Amino acid sequence: MNSELPTPSGSVHWHLGPIIDALRTSRESTHNIRHHGRVRELPSREVLMQVVNGVSAALFPTHYGRPDLNDESIDYFVGDTLHVTLDRLVEQVRRALRFSPQFTDADEGGLAERAQAITRAFAASLPGIRALLVSDVQAAMAGDPAASSVAEIMLCYPGTIAILYHRLAHCLHRLGVPFLARLAADIAHSLTGIDIHPAATIGGSFFIDHGTGVVIGETAVLGERVRLYQAVTLGAKRFPVDASGALVKGTPRHPIVEDDVVIYAGATILGRITVGAGSTIGGNVWLTQSVPPGSNVSQAQMRNT
Amino acid sequence: MNSELPTPSGSVHWHLGPIIDALRTSRESTHNIRHHGRVRELPSREVLMQVVNGVSAALFPTHYGRPDLNDESIDYFVGDTLHVTLDRLVEQVRRALRFSPQFTDADEGGLAERAQAITRAFAASLPGIRALLVSDVQAAMAGDPAASSVAEIMLCYPGTIAILYHRLAHCLHRLGVPFLARLAADIAHSLTGIDIHPAATIGGSFFIDHGTGVVIGETAVLGERVRLYQAVTLGAKRFPVDASGALVKGTPRHPIVEDDVVIYAGATILGRITVGAGSTIGGNVWLTQSVPPGSNVSQAQMRNT
Amino acid sequence: MNSELPTPSGSVHWHLGPIIDALRTSRESTHNIRHHGRVRELPSREVLMQVVNGVSAALFPTHYGRPDLNDESIDYFVGDTLHVTLDRLVEQVRRALRFSPQFTDADEGGLAERAQAITRAFAASLPGIRALLVSDVQAAMAGDPAASSVAEIMLCYPGTIAILYHRLAHCLHRLGVPFLARLAADIAHSLTGIDIHPAATIGGSFFIDHGTGVVIGETAVLGERVRLYQAVTLGAKRFPVDASGALVKGTPRHPIVEDDVVIYAGATILGRITVGAGSTIGGNVWLTQSVPPGSNVSQAQMRNT
Amino acid sequence: MNSELPTPSGSVHWHLGPIIDALRTSRESTHNIRHHGRVRELPSREVLMQVVNGVSAALFPTHYGRPDLNDESIDYFVGDTLHVTLDRLVEQVRRALRFSPQFTDADEGGLAERAQAITRAFAASLPGIRALLVSDVQAAMAGDPAASSVAEIMLCYPGTIAILYHRLAHCLHRLGVPFLARLAADIAHSLTGIDIHPAATIGGSFFIDHGTGVVIGETAVLGERVRLYQAVTLGAKRFPVDASGALVKGTPRHPIVEDDVVIYAGATILGRITVGAGSTIGGNVWLTQSVPPGSNVSQAQMRNT
Amino acid sequence: MNSELPTPSGSVHWHLGPIIDALRTSRESTHNIRHHGRVRELPSREVLMQVVNGVSAALFPTHYGRPDLNDESIDYFVGDTLHVTLDRLVEQVRRALRFSPQFTDADEGGLAERAQAITRAFAASLPGIRALLVSDVQAAMAGDPAASSVAEIMLCYPGTIAILYHRLAHCLHRLGVPFLARLAADIAHSLTGIDIHPAATIGGSFFIDHGTGVVIGETAVLGERVRLYQAVTLGAKRFPVDASGALVKGTPRHPIVEDDVVIYAGATILGRITVGAGSTIGGNVWLTQSVPPGSNVSQAQMRNT
Amino acid sequence: MNSELPTPSGSVHWHLGPIIDALRTSRESTHNIRHHGRVRELPSREVLMQVVNGVSAALFPTHYGRPDLNDESIDYFVGDTLHVTLDRLVEQVRRALRFSPQFTDADEGGLAERAQAITRAFAASLPGIRALLVSDVQAAMAGDPAASSVAEIMLCYPGTIAILYHRLAHCLHRLGVPFLARLAADIAHSLTGIDIHPAATIGGSFFIDHGTGVVIGETAVLGERVRLYQAVTLGAKRFPVDASGALVKGTPRHPIVEDDVVIYAGATILGRITVGAGSTIGGNVWLTQSVPPGSNVSQAQMRNT
Repeated sequence: MNSELPTPSGSVHWHLGPIIDALRTSRESTHNIRHHGRVRELPSREVLMQVVNGVSAALFPTHYGRPDLNDESIDYFVGDTLHVTLDRLVEQVRRALRFSPQFTDADEGGLAERAQAITRAFAASLPGIRALLVSDVQAAMAGDPAASSVAEIMLCYPGTIAILYHRLAHCLHRLGVPFLARLAADIAHSLTGIDIHPAATIGGSFFIDHGTGVVIGETAVLGERVRLYQAVTLGAKRFPVDASGALVKGTPRHPIVEDDVVIYAGATILGRITVGAGSTIGGNVWLTQSVPPGSNVSQAQMRNT
Repeated sequence: MNSELPTPSGSVHWHLGPIIDALRTSRESTHNIRHHGRVRELPSREVLMQVVNGVSAALFPTHYGRPDLNDESIDYFVGDTLHVTLDRLVEQVRRALRFSPQFTDADEGGLAERAQAITRAFAASLPGIRALLVSDVQAAMAGDPAASSVAEIMLCYPGTIAILYHRLAHCLHRLGVPFLARLAADIAHSLTGIDIHPAATIGGSFFIDHGTGVVIGETAVLGERVRLYQAVTLGAKRFPVDASGALVKGTPRHPIVEDDVVIYAGATILGRITVGAGSTIGGNVWLTQSVPPGSNVSQAQMRNT
Repeated sequence: MNSELPTPSGSVHWHLGPIIDALRTSRESTHNIRHHGRVRELPSREVLMQVVNGVSAALFPTHYGRPDLNDESIDYFVGDTLHVTLDRLVEQVRRALRFSPQFTDADEGGLAERAQAITRAFAASLPGIRALLVSDVQAAMAGDPAASSVAEIMLCYPGTIAILYHRLAHCLHRLGVPFLARLAADIAHSLTGIDIHPAATIGGSFFIDHGTGVVIGETAVLGERVRLYQAVTLGAKRFPVDASGALVKGTPRHPIVEDDVVIYAGATILGRITVGAGSTIGGNVWLTQSVPPGSNVSQAQMRNT
Repeated sequence: MNSELPTPSGSVHWHLGPIIDALRTSRESTHNIRHHGRVRELPSREVLMQVVNGVSAALFPTHYGRPDLNDESIDYFVGDTLHVTLDRLVEQVRRALRFSPQFTDADEGGLAERAQAITRAFAASLPGIRALLVSDVQAAMAGDPAASSVAEIMLCYPGTIAILYHRLAHCLHRLGVPFLARLAADIAHSLTGIDIHPAATIGGSFFIDHGTGVVIGETAVLGERVRLYQAVTLGAKRFPVDASGALVKGTPRHPIVEDDVVIYAGATILGRITVGAGSTIGGNVWLTQSVPPGSNVSQAQMRNT
Repeated sequence: MNSELPTPSGSVHWHLGPIIDALRTSRESTHNIRHHGRVRELPSREVLMQVVNGVSAALFPTHYGRPDLNDESIDYFVGDTLHVTLDRLVEQVRRALRFSPQFTDADEGGLAERAQAITRAFAASLPGIRALLVSDVQAAMAGDPAASSVAEIMLCYPGTIAILYHRLAHCLHRLGVPFLARLAADIAHSLTGIDIHPAATIGGSFFIDHGTGVVIGETAVLGERVRLYQAVTLGAKRFPVDASGALVKGTPRHPIVEDDVVIYAGATILGRITVGAGSTIGGNVWLTQSVPPGSNVSQAQMRNT
Repeated sequence: MNSELPTPSGSVHWHLGPIIDALRTSRESTHNIRHHGRVRELPSREVLMQVVNGVSAALFPTHYGRPDLNDESIDYFVGDTLHVTLDRLVEQVRRALRFSPQFTDADEGGLAERAQAITRAFAASLPGIRALLVSDVQAAMAGDPAASSVAEIMLCYPGTIAILYHRLAHCLHRLGVPFLARLAADIAHSLTGIDIHPAATIGGSFFIDHGTGVVIGETAVLGERVRLYQAVTLGAKRFPVDASGALVKGTPRHPIVEDDVVIYAGATILGRITVGAGSTIGGNVWLTQSVPPGSNVSQAQMRNT
């Protein structure tokens, strides 16, 4: 009754007994998703993609939902899509919370309640997120001479997908589900080549062109109307360690990029420095010190031999 | 009867009423895919991928179609695959045309006729495209010491996929469906990390190795036998604005790369400059001025502290 | 009875006769997957992904397999998953071997036997591979201040996926199925933007952060505890040609990176040079000469105009 | 790129040329779905099943839709499900109408308008249909000693499925889409073994137990509270032919079964006869003449040899 | 992002407001799957089919599981399949129990425990069920002159499927989950046209040939080596009602069929009568009185007019 | 990475060890699909359905294939569909042959050759089968007053599906693959409730109306223009046994039905008798003796108590 059989290789023996034993032995030291002897279910990448698709469809029903929606049907669609999506999300939030230190030992009831409160807060944030995303799409339309319609920007720009995922992931991060936020960010990274840490703070009218290789670190802060090109890194210069040599996590170590900054392809900006408002950072620039507002930084010259 | 139920979360209320209202209000200003009160259907990313897969299978039946094809069956396969694929494509062309200014208000009959004419011209271009692709695969075989067979190049090289999509997208662009061409380019970008604008003109025997992060802009022109490595940018230096400050779209602003040029990883070449035939541009080079034929450009030295 | 019909476009004729003829003519010179008049079946990308997923599930059953596994069930799961997976793998190995020169003309029986021997050796390598992967995950946990749990590293880090694929691909390469190894590497490249040639030798406790644009060449050798950031290239400087001008394949031409080296984002290291143990290579550095142990290499300064 | 390859059988030739020719010749006389040289699209069995599933879910959301629905979400679900379902149905109605003599030559606009009017009338009938179905389920609960809950009757009784399909099919028949109605009836027949012609008129509180082999003909009329068991036939005795010997279609030729009649397993009732109110027809009875109200008809005795 | 769009019908309004209102009103009286204001999840037909398929595969691994199993792999397969299947079953048992009067108000913990106990008892019954099924298949091989191999009986006989489902459903019924048992029986009915109530008791070496239309009632008792043909009914003659006129449920009202009885096609046997051991009941016979062992009952003669 | 996880039931232990042991013991006596220690692969029900669907599409391309086919595309479709379908069929024939006594021990090469010869002969029979099926559809159109178009008969009549499967199954039976033929017959039985043994011989212009419960035995012979209604049995009266009491298989034991016979619902005709040309057999008739041409047989009367 199973129709997906592998092509049978007859009676080949793989001598698996000792391999299975060795793997069992190897597992003993790494049973890290068990806690007090019970497994913690992991959030599901597939379901989280469905959640992001569902939210996208609710935010932009005719672009990401169903093009045949009209005045009569659109609110039914939005309502039903949000319900299904939030029912899916709350379960993922519940799973992810179990990996947060403060919920590792929480009772099931308290955990479920917390997951619902977070999901409800996420839902309430959606109109605000939509407004930000509209500003982002308008920034793309204004900033790319190759863009010919809003529909093209919503369907064909990896930057649009990356920002959409980021704004949702950032909301989840802010609401206290960093694991789920990180998973959403990684999905976007895999789809677009753009890697934005969900904790990064990014203002409205944000535009990333091409985008492959962009990295924006955990504590980066970007103002309004920032524009980035491919392969821009907003990273950390060094990682502070404590007295025992262990990494100190969460301290500000990524750049602050003020309003109206443009950063061209391949620029690398490292450390808790500030790029002043209205500055332009040239392609391939390597920058580890703050620059004042209105700066225009470019790379050293090449030589032609 | 629906087997894909979400895990039910009992009787949770999400307080959606005000959220749905807020989203409705937010949508009012952005109903941009409606025109004269009716929605314009968007092209489908999934169907376009099926179209590219179908064309690939028709062009290279034993590699991308079915390996069991033989003299008796291959033309039936090619014929049937092309028919199904062109029937799918014509519908996507029709949808995309509706977003071109000259067809926004076209009557349905005229639009359908135009879509058919474009699709028929696309079909007629396929033998020529196949010849170009064969030259590209041969260039990879000749240019990469790690390549051991043509099959490996066709199955395992992201550059092959990127060029395949580009040659098809460029044809669609040239035939007057830029939206669809852009969508095809974005699919290739997501699959390979290589971002080639469909309007870019690229000669035969083109080879991109590794490829992640390559960006080739809208008005770039590449000659015969050009070879690129990962993270090469052929971009614009600045965007001309008109008297009112709006971007001027479509003007030549990306490089011309003449025949037999090699550009190594991470090089950034910006503006309407010319890289003369037979030149070699070194890795990470930043180039904004034309170089004569036979140039050999490399980066400034590092210092070891 | 076929439910996936394309939208019918009525009775459109595409004038395919001459196109099909032209494609047939074009195919005649490129029938390269035929050998002595018979087609060689190509390995399947989809099946190879299933194989990697199956192996991952057998190695880390609760993370990549099924979270509900317990003491009673886990070994049944591992055993059954390995059997299904190895039965799938042996067929792919058989197909891939046919493209190796020494097996192009092998009889079916000998080929099948060889495929089984390779698959059995692959299975026997799995406990060792698991130990390496555990060291890699621990290196990520230790090296990234943003990482908060092992589960997060296993689910949300592209570097984890890239290394998992690489360790399996490298094993297949070493066992004599380079084509299959290359295909696995390309899948990882498409998923993560990280391009590691399967022949590259990489020691334990390896960590790649962010990763997009990383390229590691065929003959590269990396020691223990190496850490890379996005867009690092470990490439070849030039390709040796033989007397007739043809590429000489397989000679050592990529860097040796010794133990405990850190290489920051965008660094490009080319040629058969050695980066001495404990060195730090700064971001965007362009390096084509060996550096002694303990070196600290950084890029030239930018100028602010 | 096609992952569902059949197992290749190498280079087998099937000598198809003459077979394809013979099939083409054979087709020439039977091109009956073409009209004036263009094909009429057939309604889709799969889509019609989706339509029935969608309507079922809208009528009984927690049984046939999603069990997690609550006061907040249920009307969004019903509204969205109806919209999607009616959008699907209107296309099937349009296709089916093309096979009705009066629409064979209709212009596209008129056809589309008619299909919309029919679909809108179908939607308006749904509350009435729901009330009938509720009476049917209650009749099953009252009439079967083995029934233990309404949920069991809705999920596990083939009679429930058959009546559900019939009430929808009958509505479509009455609204002028007999082809689509017949297709729905055939789907129910395949699922349940119960064959009810969509034109048959059936009152409320109808119950079929077991059901396999039940046949109810085109012009049958059943009153309120009728109960049937498996293998009951309500058929025609003979088919009237006209002067030329051709069948006269549509004349009343099946039984009238009045209120409160019970017909046991295997009974065969043929011709335009009347089974009077409150009668009981025994198992395996063969009845071709009317019986007055309150009759109790049973079979002749068996003999034991 | 949703690829399964219905064909858009433009801006058709279906006037759904009043219909949705009417359906809401209609639902108020029939919210029968809610209990104390919360919905009881229904068992899933699809999951139950997966459970039966899983059990079948565990019982007959090479016929219903995977043909490539060998000495090394078969127990891993059986163990893993049982685990997955029992994990699925326990959830369905839990849902079904909620519909049993004694568990309607049970606390979640007690319900889960009961579901586990039942599932564990079901698992323990499997070897005994397998032995019975083997006897059934052997009876088919011995009793049908058209049968040519055991494989044919296991793959091509609807009677085999019906008995397989019945033996599992009967076990579930006996263990106290009648709702789930009934659902399994209905699935078998839909697949085969054979309708066996899960409470019916059936001895070993049971064979049903052809089978369409067979009905075996709730309290029927069949001995060893019984053979039935198509359209045989073992039904109730009348339904006892209590003083208030309500049906009395569960009383013995179907036949007892002793060992070694053969009942030919279309025979109808009704009421709590006994068919003595070794009897033969002819086709189409209508029997409502007990017959002694060794009887040979046949139908009255036909007349040829 | 597996997205279809069952709902985890935590750490439930099912105590499977002894169950798995008992099942292993139970299997030892029934390893009947092994022969000389190796498993014989079973034909696949799913693939055989694909084969029948493929053949149907090749025979009636616009009804069962794709409605958009036109003069240009139809032969490509037929050719490609036949190739794919025959490649699938030959593998199923190969598997089925292994269960025929004369091929149980055949070498792989001989078996493959035989499978190819059979498949090629099957292909050559298709034009003849199409002609028969056209006559069957015309018989339905002429014989059912409720039929309104050929399309309706091809899409909505279970008899059409049953005859289509039978004509293909009979061809496979005649060519020497009885196991595969039987599997096809059982698929049709499950879809339609009509059970025709593939060995039965049936002339052209055959029509079955309603059909549920029809059984036609292995050695039955039906002439031209025969018409059957639901629940008709053409069965065996008794099964001859040999001296040792074992069933004698394959001897003629089912009826011969001559040309132009009509048999009404529920009639049971048993044994190697002849129903003379032009006879009419009434509903529910039980017939075990030959009747001359032109007979009109009907049932005894009922009594009304």
